[in-house]
Amino acid sequence: MPRDPKHDVLFDAIRLGPKRTRNRFWQTSHCAGPGSERPGAQAHFRGMKAEGGWGVVFTEFCSIHPEADEYPYTSARIWDDGDVRNLGYMCEVAHRHGSLAGIQLWYSGGNAPSLESREFGRSPTQWLSPIFSTRCVYGMEMDESDIAAVISMYVEAGKRASQAGFDILEVSAGDDTVPIQFLEPRFNRRTDAYGGSFENRSRFFIELLEALKRELGDHCAITTRFEMDTLHGPEGVEAHEDGVRLLERFRREGVVDAVALKIGDYAEWGEDAGVSRFRKSGWMTPFIQQGKSLLGPDIPVVGNGRLTSPDDMVALIRTGVLDLIGAARPSIADPFLPTKISEGRLQDIRECIGCNICVSKFQQGGQIMCTQNVTIGEEYRRGWHPEKFTKTTAPCSVLVVGGGPAGMECARVLGERGYTVHLREADGELGGHWRKVATLPRLSEWGRVVTYRQTQLARLKKTVEVHVGVGRMTAEDVLGYGADRVVIATGSHWASDGRSATAGPIPGADDSLPHVLTPFQVVDGKPVPGRRVLVLDGDGHFMGIALAELMANQGKEVTYVCDGADVAEYGVFTMESFNNKRLLFEKGVKVMTSHWVDRIEPGRVRVSYLYKYGPDLTGPAAGRVPRKDNGGEFDLEIDAVILVTSRRSEDGLWRALKARKAEWRANDIEDIFRTGDAKAPAQVNQAMWDAHRLAREFDSPHPAYPLPWIRERQLWGDETIPKLGDARVDVDTVHHARGS
Amino acid sequence: MPRDPKHDVLFDAIRLGPKRTRNRFWQTSHCAGPGSERPGAQAHFRGMKAEGGWGVVFTEFCSIHPEADEYPYTSARIWDDGDVRNLGYMCEVAHRHGSLAGIQLWYSGGNAPSLESREFGRSPTQWLSPIFSTRCVYGMEMDESDIAAVISMYVEAGKRASQAGFDILEVSAGDDTVPIQFLEPRFNRRTDAYGGSFENRSRFFIELLEALKRELGDHCAITTRFEMDTLHGPEGVEAHEDGVRLLERFRREGVVDAVALKIGDYAEWGEDAGVSRFRKSGWMTPFIQQGKSLLGPDIPVVGNGRLTSPDDMVALIRTGVLDLIGAARPSIADPFLPTKISEGRLQDIRECIGCNICVSKFQQGGQIMCTQNVTIGEEYRRGWHPEKFTKTTAPCSVLVVGGGPAGMECARVLGERGYTVHLREADGELGGHWRKVATLPRLSEWGRVVTYRQTQLARLKKTVEVHVGVGRMTAEDVLGYGADRVVIATGSHWASDGRSATAGPIPGADDSLPHVLTPFQVVDGKPVPGRRVLVLDGDGHFMGIALAELMANQGKEVTYVCDGADVAEYGVFTMESFNNKRLLFEKGVKVMTSHWVDRIEPGRVRVSYLYKYGPDLTGPAAGRVPRKDNGGEFDLEIDAVILVTSRRSEDGLWRALKARKAEWRANDIEDIFRTGDAKAPAQVNQAMWDAHRLAREFDSPHPAYPLPWIRERQLWGDETIPKLGDARVDVDTVHHARGS
Repeated sequence: MPRDPKHDVLFDAIRLGPKRTRNRFWQTSHCAGPGSERPGAQAHFRGMKAEGGWGVVFTEFCSIHPEADEYPYTSARIWDDGDVRNLGYMCEVAHRHGSLAGIQLWYSGGNAPSLESREFGRSPTQWLSPIFSTRCVYGMEMDESDIAAVISMYVEAGKRASQAGFDILEVSAGDDTVPIQFLEPRFNRRTDAYGGSFENRSRFFIELLEALKRELGDHCAITTRFEMDTLHGPEGVEAHEDGVRLLERFRREGVVDAVALKIGDYAEWGEDAGVSRFRKSGWMTPFIQQGKSLLGPDIPVVGNGRLTSPDDMVALIRTGVLDLIGAARPSIADPFLPTKISEGRLQDIRECIGCNICVSKFQQGGQIMCTQNVTIGEEYRRGWHPEKFTKTTAPCSVLVVGGGPAGMECARVLGERGYTVHLREADGELGGHWRKVATLPRLSEWGRVVTYRQTQLARLKKTVEVHVGVGRMTAEDVLGYGADRVVIATGSHWASDGRSATAGPIPGADDSLPHVLTPFQVVDGKPVPGRRVLVLDGDGHFMGIALAELMANQGKEVTYVCDGADVAEYGVFTMESFNNKRLLFEKGVKVMTSHWVDRIEPGRVRVSYLYKYGPDLTGPAAGRVPRKDNGGEFDLEIDAVILVTSRRSEDGLWRALKARKAEWRANDIEDIFRTGDAKAPAQVNQAMWDAHRLAREFDSPHPAYPLPWIRERQLWGDETIPKLGDARVDVDTVHHARGS
Repeated sequence: MPRDPKHDVLFDAIRLGPKRTRNRFWQTSHCAGPGSERPGAQAHFRGMKAEGGWGVVFTEFCSIHPEADEYPYTSARIWDDGDVRNLGYMCEVAHRHGSLAGIQLWYSGGNAPSLESREFGRSPTQWLSPIFSTRCVYGMEMDESDIAAVISMYVEAGKRASQAGFDILEVSAGDDTVPIQFLEPRFNRRTDAYGGSFENRSRFFIELLEALKRELGDHCAITTRFEMDTLHGPEGVEAHEDGVRLLERFRREGVVDAVALKIGDYAEWGEDAGVSRFRKSGWMTPFIQQGKSLLGPDIPVVGNGRLTSPDDMVALIRTGVLDLIGAARPSIADPFLPTKISEGRLQDIRECIGCNICVSKFQQGGQIMCTQNVTIGEEYRRGWHPEKFTKTTAPCSVLVVGGGPAGMECARVLGERGYTVHLREADGELGGHWRKVATLPRLSEWGRVVTYRQTQLARLKKTVEVHVGVGRMTAEDVLGYGADRVVIATGSHWASDGRSATAGPIPGADDSLPHVLTPFQVVDGKPVPGRRVLVLDGDGHFMGIALAELMANQGKEVTYVCDGADVAEYGVFTMESFNNKRLLFEKGVKVMTSHWVDRIEPGRVRVSYLYKYGPDLTGPAAGRVPRKDNGGEFDLEIDAVILVTSRRSEDGLWRALKARKAEWRANDIEDIFRTGDAKAPAQVNQAMWDAHRLAREFDSPHPAYPLPWIRERQLWGDETIPKLGDARVDVDTVHHARGS
């Protein structure tokens, strides 16, 4: 199908100083995990987006100097020749596809945990880092020679970046980096020429941009990503105060070739990369619109907002809100989003659901994953392409039992690969438990997991037959079905007895009783009796909090009890923890962390504090628990308990078939596999990854086991850069600041 | 000095099946961070201990198969030829020093987050992992073919380990690994031959050891590290129940060449690697003694207990408690502990203080650090040796201002390197703030930081003059002192105004008022008025909790308020968090997390909930904070407030000297440096590391900046192992289990 002409504007080239983009699609700098340490993963991850049509692709935040070291979190680094070599490969792959490569120059000032370099960052004034407060991270307060040295670090890093092949040098002025630290009164209490008035507080930032322009502006576009409201009121940057002033100064002084705008700060990163539970597509538009109006027509503006709709993108351009479509998560969920718009294949766009699983893996210190696009991060190490599938050389018929996310993903990939697939779902609709999840408060966008796969299965109807409403299959049914191979994707269910990670079944917990409910019983309409509801959360991700909100919305008096030290602790990784706490407080939900329910009776539950036993042990010959019991149990009057305690694989069919393995051959079944939650309950991204992997490797020698992947790491005996005895550029004598 | 003959017994050789140790010093498997990814760091870190006299050196926990993947936490891995090459270098270095190399074979069952491999672990029954509950980690429940496959994984891993050169194959049967999962009823609800009776629950473990013995026992010692009490009562392993039974079975069946004993589990890792705040040297002795009595004379027992005293070690051997001195932390704090005992240099032993900074860095996903031995982890990447120092070729006189930890460490290393040093301390004793810290409840062992350095400085008296009680030096004093070079190590102080990571000064906070105190005012004896004390903790490590305990011990009614989501959050990394909570509960301290103090008045403080503002933003043109205020402030009647909110560098002298830089040359001063807290407040390990680094590189071209270190990582273009298309050993068909 040809491109809809109304979308043509998205493919205009945009001038950025000495460079020119091929379209308006700008993959914003975003964390992913490969850094400068996994060059193949980095290059092919960003390169896949270039191949998919993103006219600009960026690294993640890139440290300019060992003083700005976020290890154990993985930034890119442009410290030495090794980094030039490693990131240079990313530039090469981006250029191969006609895209520009951008690097985000990042100096963290007083926010550097520096667990690799062990160096101290420098900051406008000295304070305990709000990002790493309990890790004892402070900055060295800068004097003017320090300021000159830091500017020199940026310029030296920019030179290395240019040598690596980068086209765009973007100064990070958000996420609590040093340019914005100078701007914010909460971090800048200086009394010299760099503190006090707005003019003074913006001096560092402007001098830095000038130095980069002067030294590198002929060959590279110099841009910045700026947080125009840090959400800290007058102690921070407010959009209508210093936000306005700074953008006016940019326009006046002509120091940047483009500006990317956002809001929030590092501690409130969830206001920038907001989950769909709290922030809808385009929520930053009023801020960006204000910014664009100040910058005028000559300075292109990049605006983000988890944009996945081409019509919305066009509207933002037509109404003068922005010039370039910034995207991190939409480019992860679909690296081919621009190509699909260009080819008029809108129905094939795999839209981001805003779950923040991507960043949650980085936040744990790992590599990026994605719910919608499970090939992410696998481009290099396993050679997976999100849009291309190797046709099998051994086609056969496959029965996939279970049409939840894993079953759908498996059937889809098998279909793409040329297998003849029957996908059979007991219920009347595809989607499994995810269909129910998407009905919970704030989770409607998560339904895109199901709808994308439904659309794709419809497209694949020549190879994949979908049968819904067929009821549960027995082992007998499967053995007699006539398929060459079988995949069991029967999912999982919530424990009905309160069993959790830290405790066994709870006496009185039984979801066949009227006052005890499991999550999908609530979704399916089992009445919640009485006024006082207790949600017991041993899961710690979204389910407990969603049910607590649902109950509060229904006017219940809600008590949320969890075994974690904080509510829904996975929210720390997805950056929704603060807003979860704000939500519960606003809704009047009573919260009890580090507690658990010991017993449930009609109208009453017994609760106890998890640390009620003393710190001392009482020796090897002691009784039940070798610690002193200090009390800490109490009763709550409660009318209903919702058990979000743990899950269990729905693996009865698998077990029955495994027990009859001797009969497989006689029934002409080559092999039977299981996938997803039927193996072990998992996050939905992991369940679908597992199913995708099985389908990708369905003709490998032993498909139940993944093939080896490329592990990028040092091998003993190989070269290292730098080596002991190498020198460092002396930023104290190589000056690039104004006047030096 | 020659060795004291009473210590001779420590140097007996011990037979371990086909191998023989050179002495009784056994560096237990312990986490450190290098894994199989940083082969040079791994080899030289473990190798330094071998050089220092540890007769056995182990890897950290080593994954046997990608199904047991703890990434993003770094285990060693023995998955493929790349790992054989990388860990082989560690064996080579260990053997060079005459030590045996051990590997801990680790399969995590249902506790594998697998964020690199993305594979599912297999477990006796299925449960939500208590280690990673909020990360949705479950195992696949095993059938008998799975059990055979897992045993094959161990054997195949053992073969690769043997090929790499390892002498000892230790099966981890603690830390919630699969052998102990089978033993513990809480994880094993099977009804087949591997569940139910003790005989059945121990079947997997015994079959596994038999398979290793059979396949590898002729060439390698087969041992295990076993948790004989998991502290979970009858649902776990109790020392006097299944603990006894298993050790008796070991003795009866002859399946192991040695047994290392400990207690606790992975969730309660702090009971094994207990901090000195809660567990004193030898606290596991009653358990180990019981274990040894069951195993009899023919099976050597390794026992840990943070042992640093040679007399205690000898006593444990003489009284039949154990045969081998297991150590992790004492070998980190002093890799040369055995050599120092052997050479009769007991005063030079650098004793572990039990602060768990070592493991706290691993727990953050980083590389090991140590408070006492700041050279740890730097053996390869910077070429540092804990006991050897390069003599300077440019000796000169150095004034070190400040005799706290950083000043002492700097003076010590400068003295070792042949500089002429004056170390000047204002107070009457060396130690700085650390001397005060060590007077707080439970922290007396931390004083070893000071005493070790005092001893070393006394030994170095030919090169280092120590002047105490000299009062504070002015810039004038320094300029006129006559030293060629100066190091400013003046430390830091606690904020007197309540300033913290997330908030500015607190109205009414002023430590000159009688009812407002800072930590060292309390230590120095400023009276704490009244009965009701509030400890305000914005620091989140040990200080707030220590002062809360001190106040409770003095009979005060204590309220502990912190901005973190949990009490003293750094305790999660040092594994003292659970016992901190137990302690506060036992002492009756009232805890308010996620709160802060807004105002202090005599007799009253205003407190507010940090998430009192709603989750929604109110747009770019809003007022102070663009969110709805939902209330959440309240008053507490309080007689005294202790402010543990943040610190500030004591950098007045540095600033004064920097401002007079033009006068340095005229005063024959070559250069002036600052180090430690005077740069930025830091954990004491970091402050001393910084000082040590400066002294090591004092004659480098630009000593204020560290020299580049070796970054072990993939360089683009270098070889990778495995490669795409490589095969994996098929553990389903290569059987090693009994009867297959």
